Amino acid sequence: MPWLDANHADSAPPKAINLAEKLSLFTDHWSPKVIAAFNGHDVMLVKVQGEFVWHSHPDTDDFFLVLKGQLTIRQRDGDVILNAGDLHIVPKGVEHCTVAADEAHLLLIEPRGTPNTGDPATAAVNHPI
Amino acid sequence: MPWLDANHADSAPPKAINLAEKLSLFTDHWSPKVIAAFNGHDVMLVKVQGEFVWHSHPDTDDFFLVLKGQLTIRQRDGDVILNAGDLHIVPKGVEHCTVAADEAHLLLIEPRGTPNTGDPATAAVNHPI
Repeated sequence: MPWLDANHADSAPPKAINLAEKLSLFTDHWSPKVIAAFNGHDVMLVKVQGEFVWHSHPDTDDFFLVLKGQLTIRQRDGDVILNAGDLHIVPKGVEHCTVAADEAHLLLIEPRGTPNTGDPATAAVNHPI
Repeated sequence: MPWLDANHADSAPPKAINLAEKLSLFTDHWSPKVIAAFNGHDVMLVKVQGEFVWHSHPDTDDFFLVLKGQLTIRQRDGDVILNAGDLHIVPKGVEHCTVAADEAHLLLIEPRGTPNTGDPATAAVNHPI
């Protein structure tokens, strides 16, 4: 799988992962794509537009880096507005709801297998690309 | 401390962390600055120029995202060349040496307290900004 190659799990020479190139491989929204593995975490890209569900992750902080567009992360203690080049960590257990009026592109990092809705029953499957 | 504020350890309203703003706060090289905490890891910015020492981290993968400039990560199995928007994970235990002919700006993620040289005796101290 490409993301395993990128971590040198085989004998291929090492190669950097270009975020823009990976982003060009998909168009769907709210469906994170795994591009690398790091200390038991998945590094993922996702395109979002519209509003996600309110949820929280009891056991993991939630890492967001905006690569393109604008994302609002609603928390009960206020909205966090992220533009390209902005990073935000939602602490574990903190309820949040992500909203993007126009399409935004994000880099996410979560422990492998974390359900994106906080609930395996409603979560998207994270596909490697 | 600002990086704790950013993770809402106090009652301040949540605010995104702007990478360019944080990068404007320092000029020194090879001295990572902690900007956020995430699942026991430090999220750090660093400016580099020149050549670092060959080293490895026995217990942690090494996360590199280039924000500006070009970085070469030399590994025994080949050089990995990263430009802005490129990401690379050096797997744990893999020897590497980072080189930047001109100044490059990087986002790094490592378990809190990881020595940047792989050896606490020679490592830079990671300051929060």
